Parts: sequence; structure tokens; C-alpha cells
Amino acid sequence: MELAFDKLGGLIPGIVQDQRTQEVLMLGYLNAEALVQTQRTGEVHFFSRSRNRLWKKGESSGHVLRVREMRLDCDADALLFLVEPVGPGVCHEGYRSCFFRELAEDGSTRVIESAPLYQAKSMASRGRDESTQVGRS
Amino acid sequence: MELAFDKLGGLIPGIVQDQRTQEVLMLGYLNAEALVQTQRTGEVHFFSRSRNRLWKKGESSGHVLRVREMRLDCDADALLFLVEPVGPGVCHEGYRSCFFRELAEDGSTRVIESAPLYQAKSMASRGRDESTQVGRS
Repeated sequence: MELAFDKLGGLIPGIVQDQRTQEVLMLGYLNAEALVQTQRTGEVHFFSRSRNRLWKKGESSGHVLRVREMRLDCDADALLFLVEPVGPGVCHEGYRSCFFRELAEDGSTRVIESAPLYQAKSMASRGRDESTQVGRS
Repeated sequence: MELAFDKLGGLIPGIVQDQRTQEVLMLGYLNAEALVQTQRTGEVHFFSRSRNRLWKKGESSGHVLRVREMRLDCDADALLFLVEPVGPGVCHEGYRSCFFRELAEDGSTRVIESAPLYQAKSMASRGRDESTQVGRS
């Protein structure tokens, strides 16, 4: 089956869901090489649009995402990874999930995860992996 | 909080997850108007890239997605909708989830949902809503 990388200029979105808890953890983008590396290694790789390079999730922090199952949608233009996440969380802001904020109807947001599980080395950094674990909830 | 519609030419991906079962059902794209209509009506609206217009999920089939919670990711460039889906499924191919296929390492796919819950009027049609319910599993 041909994946529709052409719809987003060579990229396809990949949803990451925790296989055990069913929580949606993050969304990233894969190019063809990222998909090959993900399949070859069993750990999720993305293509970083901001850094313009292949990027293994957790490459510096060790918080990799072990793929337990890969699913493809009906249009072959989106992927769903059921994973076993290694480490306390995936978000560069220290939360378990990147979707840690609720968006209200008036456009306001509020944090719905109780507290960061770990601290980023630099909150100004765009690297999601530059973090140090300080504790588990 | 400003959503980053600029990263994908005015669109932002929206993941749809069943609030009750936690199953990821589909991924679509919203423009600013689709988000406003989703917030105003409480039902998920997308922007159809193929039809180049605003599109309420379920507008013709009645299989709408009632929003129970909206979440925003750390980079404000992806949305997660926790929904109550109305009807037997969301996929135009008749399945409960658009992610009804597993993608194996060798690139082959296999259907992991047992059987279509309903039949599309025309499988050749690109309209995800042109379907008729024939039964529930």
C-alpha cells in the first residue's frame, strides 16, 4: 500500500497513543525515511520541520517510544502508533502528554495534567528531548 | 492563546478520540472557520482539502461527533477532540474507526476491525458521509 506522503509535501502525520493507558501523547510528522527508520528500529522517528532533519523521539533524553502496533487510516494519509513510552513523559514541557491543556470555548486554556513530571533543561529550547527527569508522579 | 495555523498553510490537524472507549477514530484538518464552527455548535467541523470547503463531519449521514472536550498541544499546532460519536462509525469505508488497518513492518496491511458496521453508498465516492447504516456489531 502506498502512503500518501504527497498531500503534505512529503510528510504524513503520526499520532502517538499509549497502548496501555490509551492516552494520546503527541502528534508528529514522518517523511519516508522516518517511517523506514521507525519500522527498522521499532522506535518512533519523526521528521523535524523546525530543524529540517530526521529525529528519533528520545534520542537525547532516552524517552523513546517503542512501537507495539502501527495502524494506517482509510486514505493512507495518517498513521497511528500504539506505543510503550519509555520514561515519565513525552512533552518537552515536562508533561506525560503534549495534550496537557484543555481549550475552552472562549479560547482560554487551562492545564489539566496535575504537574510536570520532570523539568526541561531549558524551557526556551525547542528540543523536546532536552530534558532531565526529576521525579515521577 | 494563538493557534499555529500558519505551519500547514492555514490548517491544523485535529485528532478525534472516542471519550468513552478511548479509541482514536480519525484525523482531519481544521482551518480557523472550522474551529469557530466546532466551538459554536459543539460538533466537529473540518476543512476538506479535496473539496476545498468547510465540512461538518456527519453533515449528510447524521454521524456527527459531539465534542466533550477539546485539548491543545504544547506547540499549539495540533488539537485533540474527545467526542461522543453519533452512529455506528466514522469511516467512509464502513468501519468504526478510520484506523482499521494494521501496517506491518514489510509494508503489508491487514484489516483489524472484524467487519464493516455499515455500507457506503458508493465505495468510489470520496465523501466520508455518503453512507447508509446496515447494522451494528
